[in-house]
Amino acid sequence: MSSAASFRVEKDLLGTLEVPADAYYGIQTLRAANNFHLSGVPLSHYPKLVVALAMVKQAAADANRELGHLSDAKHAAISAACARLIKGDYHDQFVVDMIQGGAGTSTNMNANEVIANVALEAMGHQKGEYQYLHPNNDVNMAQSTNDAYPTAIRLGLLLGHDALLASLDSLIQAFAAKGKEFDHVLKMGRTQLQDAVPMTLGQEFRAFATTMTEDLQRLRSLAPELLTEINLGGTAIGTGINADPGYQALAVQRLATISGHPLIPAADLIEATSDMGAFVLFSGMLKRTAVKLSKICNDLRLLSSGPRTGINEINLPARQPGSSIMPGKVNPVIPEAVNQVAFAIMGNDLALTVAAEGGQLQLNVMEPLIAYKIFDSIRLLQRAMDMLREHCIVGITANEQRCRELVEHSIGLVTALNPYIGYENATRIARVALETGRGVLELVREEKLLDDAMLDDILRPENMIAPRLVPLKA
Amino acid sequence: MSSAASFRVEKDLLGTLEVPADAYYGIQTLRAANNFHLSGVPLSHYPKLVVALAMVKQAAADANRELGHLSDAKHAAISAACARLIKGDYHDQFVVDMIQGGAGTSTNMNANEVIANVALEAMGHQKGEYQYLHPNNDVNMAQSTNDAYPTAIRLGLLLGHDALLASLDSLIQAFAAKGKEFDHVLKMGRTQLQDAVPMTLGQEFRAFATTMTEDLQRLRSLAPELLTEINLGGTAIGTGINADPGYQALAVQRLATISGHPLIPAADLIEATSDMGAFVLFSGMLKRTAVKLSKICNDLRLLSSGPRTGINEINLPARQPGSSIMPGKVNPVIPEAVNQVAFAIMGNDLALTVAAEGGQLQLNVMEPLIAYKIFDSIRLLQRAMDMLREHCIVGITANEQRCRELVEHSIGLVTALNPYIGYENATRIARVALETGRGVLELVREEKLLDDAMLDDILRPENMIAPRLVPLKA
Amino acid sequence: MSSAASFRVEKDLLGTLEVPADAYYGIQTLRAANNFHLSGVPLSHYPKLVVALAMVKQAAADANRELGHLSDAKHAAISAACARLIKGDYHDQFVVDMIQGGAGTSTNMNANEVIANVALEAMGHQKGEYQYLHPNNDVNMAQSTNDAYPTAIRLGLLLGHDALLASLDSLIQAFAAKGKEFDHVLKMGRTQLQDAVPMTLGQEFRAFATTMTEDLQRLRSLAPELLTEINLGGTAIGTGINADPGYQALAVQRLATISGHPLIPAADLIEATSDMGAFVLFSGMLKRTAVKLSKICNDLRLLSSGPRTGINEINLPARQPGSSIMPGKVNPVIPEAVNQVAFAIMGNDLALTVAAEGGQLQLNVMEPLIAYKIFDSIRLLQRAMDMLREHCIVGITANEQRCRELVEHSIGLVTALNPYIGYENATRIARVALETGRGVLELVREEKLLDDAMLDDILRPENMIAPRLVPLKA
Amino acid sequence: MSSAASFRVEKDLLGTLEVPADAYYGIQTLRAANNFHLSGVPLSHYPKLVVALAMVKQAAADANRELGHLSDAKHAAISAACARLIKGDYHDQFVVDMIQGGAGTSTNMNANEVIANVALEAMGHQKGEYQYLHPNNDVNMAQSTNDAYPTAIRLGLLLGHDALLASLDSLIQAFAAKGKEFDHVLKMGRTQLQDAVPMTLGQEFRAFATTMTEDLQRLRSLAPELLTEINLGGTAIGTGINADPGYQALAVQRLATISGHPLIPAADLIEATSDMGAFVLFSGMLKRTAVKLSKICNDLRLLSSGPRTGINEINLPARQPGSSIMPGKVNPVIPEAVNQVAFAIMGNDLALTVAAEGGQLQLNVMEPLIAYKIFDSIRLLQRAMDMLREHCIVGITANEQRCRELVEHSIGLVTALNPYIGYENATRIARVALETGRGVLELVREEKLLDDAMLDDILRPENMIAPRLVPLKA
Repeated sequence: MSSAASFRVEKDLLGTLEVPADAYYGIQTLRAANNFHLSGVPLSHYPKLVVALAMVKQAAADANRELGHLSDAKHAAISAACARLIKGDYHDQFVVDMIQGGAGTSTNMNANEVIANVALEAMGHQKGEYQYLHPNNDVNMAQSTNDAYPTAIRLGLLLGHDALLASLDSLIQAFAAKGKEFDHVLKMGRTQLQDAVPMTLGQEFRAFATTMTEDLQRLRSLAPELLTEINLGGTAIGTGINADPGYQALAVQRLATISGHPLIPAADLIEATSDMGAFVLFSGMLKRTAVKLSKICNDLRLLSSGPRTGINEINLPARQPGSSIMPGKVNPVIPEAVNQVAFAIMGNDLALTVAAEGGQLQLNVMEPLIAYKIFDSIRLLQRAMDMLREHCIVGITANEQRCRELVEHSIGLVTALNPYIGYENATRIARVALETGRGVLELVREEKLLDDAMLDDILRPENMIAPRLVPLKA
Repeated sequence: MSSAASFRVEKDLLGTLEVPADAYYGIQTLRAANNFHLSGVPLSHYPKLVVALAMVKQAAADANRELGHLSDAKHAAISAACARLIKGDYHDQFVVDMIQGGAGTSTNMNANEVIANVALEAMGHQKGEYQYLHPNNDVNMAQSTNDAYPTAIRLGLLLGHDALLASLDSLIQAFAAKGKEFDHVLKMGRTQLQDAVPMTLGQEFRAFATTMTEDLQRLRSLAPELLTEINLGGTAIGTGINADPGYQALAVQRLATISGHPLIPAADLIEATSDMGAFVLFSGMLKRTAVKLSKICNDLRLLSSGPRTGINEINLPARQPGSSIMPGKVNPVIPEAVNQVAFAIMGNDLALTVAAEGGQLQLNVMEPLIAYKIFDSIRLLQRAMDMLREHCIVGITANEQRCRELVEHSIGLVTALNPYIGYENATRIARVALETGRGVLELVREEKLLDDAMLDDILRPENMIAPRLVPLKA
Repeated sequence: MSSAASFRVEKDLLGTLEVPADAYYGIQTLRAANNFHLSGVPLSHYPKLVVALAMVKQAAADANRELGHLSDAKHAAISAACARLIKGDYHDQFVVDMIQGGAGTSTNMNANEVIANVALEAMGHQKGEYQYLHPNNDVNMAQSTNDAYPTAIRLGLLLGHDALLASLDSLIQAFAAKGKEFDHVLKMGRTQLQDAVPMTLGQEFRAFATTMTEDLQRLRSLAPELLTEINLGGTAIGTGINADPGYQALAVQRLATISGHPLIPAADLIEATSDMGAFVLFSGMLKRTAVKLSKICNDLRLLSSGPRTGINEINLPARQPGSSIMPGKVNPVIPEAVNQVAFAIMGNDLALTVAAEGGQLQLNVMEPLIAYKIFDSIRLLQRAMDMLREHCIVGITANEQRCRELVEHSIGLVTALNPYIGYENATRIARVALETGRGVLELVREEKLLDDAMLDDILRPENMIAPRLVPLKA
Repeated sequence: MSSAASFRVEKDLLGTLEVPADAYYGIQTLRAANNFHLSGVPLSHYPKLVVALAMVKQAAADANRELGHLSDAKHAAISAACARLIKGDYHDQFVVDMIQGGAGTSTNMNANEVIANVALEAMGHQKGEYQYLHPNNDVNMAQSTNDAYPTAIRLGLLLGHDALLASLDSLIQAFAAKGKEFDHVLKMGRTQLQDAVPMTLGQEFRAFATTMTEDLQRLRSLAPELLTEINLGGTAIGTGINADPGYQALAVQRLATISGHPLIPAADLIEATSDMGAFVLFSGMLKRTAVKLSKICNDLRLLSSGPRTGINEINLPARQPGSSIMPGKVNPVIPEAVNQVAFAIMGNDLALTVAAEGGQLQLNVMEPLIAYKIFDSIRLLQRAMDMLREHCIVGITANEQRCRELVEHSIGLVTALNPYIGYENATRIARVALETGRGVLELVREEKLLDDAMLDDILRPENMIAPRLVPLKA
């Protein structure tokens, strides 16, 4: 069915299979690729995960050499192969679907096989000549999927974390800059979509910066708290069976050095083998950030609603024509897309949570889905924040005149007069204004409840948007 | 520790326990009440479930008598007790928490024990003298929790279904009445919160009626499709072990007669014993209705936003003062509460779904949570619909003048002129209007693109809110 | 920056952009591709959606020609282009991300532009020479995204529905075949993971077939109920503004003919424009099917647990080596993958539900996420069912001897003896058996409670797995 | 309609209403109770929330007196009333439904009114004589619902936090005690429900203790991080309008003192007014704990499955008869109930998350649902942990003999022999054992691959359950 040139034959416990001759992956990867044709998203879509797998293999090889279990020659070849993967080469060889049975065995074997074959070629052998360097015996030495794979997931998240924080930080800076730019723009605050009391547009955008800064801090502290404790060295179920007693400490230490992250060995390896708590909480935190972004985007859409029959206090930059049928219509497409990303992340969190609940006894076999969903959430979140900043926030302008008119026209102004004209007068003025469509200020002036100087003073923005000395009641 | 007067001693496989002397429930109910102190919501909070349990017991007793397994005297006493429960008596004796382990055994035993003790008293015996009438041997005869309990849940849902539909129907009528009342109120339609094209407020409210009518029809047809197939007669796992071959048909037939619902026996009792699919889909439907209500309530809150700095096209009836600090503020509290009910129902659907996934082999032991969440969703939904109709929809008024001004002021009007002045002119006019703050109509008039008669004709409401003959392009 | 040869310049309301010369999409698609770099999943991943878009465009063109608004030449060119897309050509030109702002405008414009350019070339023009055939004016004639896009989503789901049902049906056949194959295999049923009463393995697998058959029927009937009512003709918000009065009926009729599905026009187009109820319920149904599959896969994993320290009643076919560290270990990787798919579908349902709740006024701008998640759920479900059938179910074998030993060794047997030796004896025998580790049957024989002939009769499989005549109590 | 004796008439902006004469709540509470008949769960069900409200009112009164806005007499009366509420009195007067519109205004007014009326009576006035002490002007002085209510929620959570931690800690101790008790019980570990390698039952229970200890630490640190920053003093929207400039610092300081919790003022009050992030993450953490408990309970149910046809390594204490039809059946009802609690908490987290996303502009009006769901999750979690410890964990016993037999019978033993007999021999032995049903050890002995002394040494528990020196390959 195939020429000798285009395939090589590999063998495992279940028999033989023809592997494409140019494939660096091997028979077990191929079996997995044939078994799992599900999400359509291969491992290669998450480069940090591939890099993290290579780092784990490198650290294990280092420890095994130091303990005398791996020859220098094999170690050198494995190291060179891992370096290539870390650099970004051969990622297209990670072909297994992110959704897979087997608790990550296929991912682990995909890494073992690619590294073995890259190393074999570098050693002057052919791909598949595993007698010289074996995916299991050598690349996977002293490891089980059950420790190597969770370790790689954690490390992969850590490797991408700075970029996530950087995107968030840039977005915060953009909000803060707008906060400063709009500091003088007086506008009405709204609660329950009803007119409340005055504030500035600057305060509104600064609050966006503040709320995301809280998430920046929380994400920055949670990642090391949750992800640096790894179970490498626990092998099959955390008892460390068949591992050299010196292996765990050495391997974790090497991985910390290679990755530049302060990884530490889990104290209870039995627990650490099946525990998914870190992912549940980390995903919960990503969900929180997504929810905050969605709320902000809802606000942006409300504030830019109109142009004539909505609030129209701000203008979002036009990104694309809004309608083929309605001339001149421009829509808030960027915030709308962020909303949808947030909903997708909420869905990911649910899938991940149910998967975490599905662990049994000494392992959580649903870990591939957990990995998939958390990497997906991070990628979506980061891309959405970049999009929001670049295509929307930095280009927002204020309709200062409109903002001011709404304040002056508003009945909510009466709240500021409350301490001076009394609650009873204030309520009456509010009712008359509402019934007649007239302004609060003109009614107050008409009734000579306050003189113009007093009114001007009360209504100076700086006096309305912060606490001020309230006159004592008589 | 207690006087003979205030307690009686009952016994089961695990030993003896003191049951309060005036309690109609017995030892197994007491054990369950002691074991499960969780939600704080006892079975009695869902009267339809209690009534359904009584109907199941009645039907079983009827079948057992007819088959010669239950004496006439015992049957008469059980029947009288069931009738009392169906009438609403003794519901306070259903004290077990809705969240319980044991796959509903405690609920089933709560029913068995209350019925037995009510019957015993009617027979002239003391509560607890089970030698004359036994909760298990007589009241539960030929039943297992695993068939009696799921049957009661399904029947309980059916028993409450007409009331749910009636509440929904009343709400629809309220929407439809407003649709008619507001038929002449021209207003701007909005897409993506941006000005779109004109419509009437009547069309908007009629759409609310339409969308809920779809749900009325769907709920009406889904309930019998999903809930009338019951597994009564399957006993422990659906094999009908220890049941009389004639029992299933008789019992189901009796239950249909007693309840007035067209119940039918499940064809595959093994499957029916553990299958939760009907609840998952029914809850999914309730969720859909909740989501629609939430969307409508979001719209009501948007349309009534203001009064001065929002859309303010409609007024919701004031239900309570809105703020202690802001005089005259009235908030859309009713729609806000409906939103929250919808979110709660979404949460219930999730809990139920995960519980449904948690079934194992011949039973789904999570069924009590499923029952709890679906009954809770229905109650919340019905109460929310009643509240929305009574406290909000029927009192809504339109700000007709405001609606018309927004239309006339809108740039979206230009879409209606599109076919007459061309897309290029329309786009230019739109841009000038937006930049200068002027009206589309005055610009069209100024440029004499259309004469007044033509304009009046185009802009007649009846011509804008429905398809009209478009002049062919030259 | 680019040579004239590799780009062409296109123009829209927001200015000009360089479009790759060989691209059939145009400027608006390019803007969207630049704006939305989110999920990484382009429209082309869902071919049925692309085909459905082409069918909508074809139907609209047919109606427009018949009404005299579109020339025969343009109609012919558009028709030829649509035919190519329906055939599967040019799908790689659908490059916009499934997650997008703008309520699907970018998807609609992607279709309009590709069709226009394919048509232009067929007419002998260059791509981008829209003066001869315009994406908006001609391909999108009488349509708005707000009616064309939801129509295409519904139609896309219908187009894929038969294949989904076929996969489900094949799976059911596989379950049913195993049900037949294992009909004679007596085994213990289990409730709450505790030994219950006997049944056959055939009954167990037949129940899988039954439960999925219910879903087959439900899916078969729900799809037409939910998806055939379309809002084509409603244009921007459902008022049909600028559409020819004859257009709606003609276009829907044409689309029904082209697609072979019995599409009908929505009665209330205002409602239909923003209503997402059909998707919420359809997704709820997909979720139900996923939950059932997950429960079945949990059962398969339990029943095949072992080989020595678990239940081990069945063997799943080995699909890949299970462990690099544990020789001979083979894992239930296929059911495990199905579980994860089910969790992903639960997450999709949540994301979709929240998106449905997010509609506002005359449109649901979150519809792209809804489309994405529902298409993804269907694809995942179908692939998972195919995988489960092909790689697992058809290869399952029974450990008949083990099954029988567990029955004979079981204490649950005592339930079958209950009617003959009495509840008191049965309970005592059960307790002694449990305490001494001895068998129920040997104890019964030892005590001569029943003679061997009687015992044999009672314990004949056909007498234990179905109701039998219970001797009346004395 | 009512006698003067049984009602008093109160008045607000919307008119008058008859309030029951003995009610300490007033007209606004009554309106809310009439408006919101939804969950059936009144505020009084969460005593910590009521106490927290009283503390907030006390702190505000202290600050207002110190600033000279509240007279000593009024302050004294308010203080005495707050003390009564803190002590637990009058909680039955908190009658408003936990699900309510108005962003908590009704809850806040319920507190204001009860405190006012209790204070009025103490001052020698009648309930309702608000001219002497006013719910709004005096009790609510310098507060808005929008700062008082979120502050009370946060404080309420803090007030209950120690009890939650204590329940968790007790559960951990129970797991740890069993870990110690079972330290010598050798058993098989299982991954993917397949036999893996040996471990001890003590290790398994210690892992439960470890994993919950991580949650104890996380919960302990997260609560102060998330909940101590409060927005008291922000009034309506965070600008502090109408508040004395000295108020915020004083009030927060007083509240810290009164509550004994290190509360700090939010730096950005605009942000803090609408931010729900703390609740989302805290609920995410509760969900994580629930998921871990559910996983543990799944394990307990698996390990105790049987008694004859399951794993049967441990015995859970019998809590109630398991079946009316199957003599002697006892079910794992306690873990089953914990599972269901976990699912309910997952549902709560979803409802809360969607509510958090629903905030708009300067307020999140869905906060009552957020409060409801988070208080409910905590209560469920705490009760479930207490139940699990008391009714299950402390009474668990091990079937030591069964555990050991499963190990000896297991094929997984071969993994321990792997380093000594080689992978090839190990795989062959495993296959023969599986095919013949014989034991691994007897086959090894038969083939004389290892002598008895060596075998004994390898298979000593202490050598199998931890890393040991692996002999180097030749």
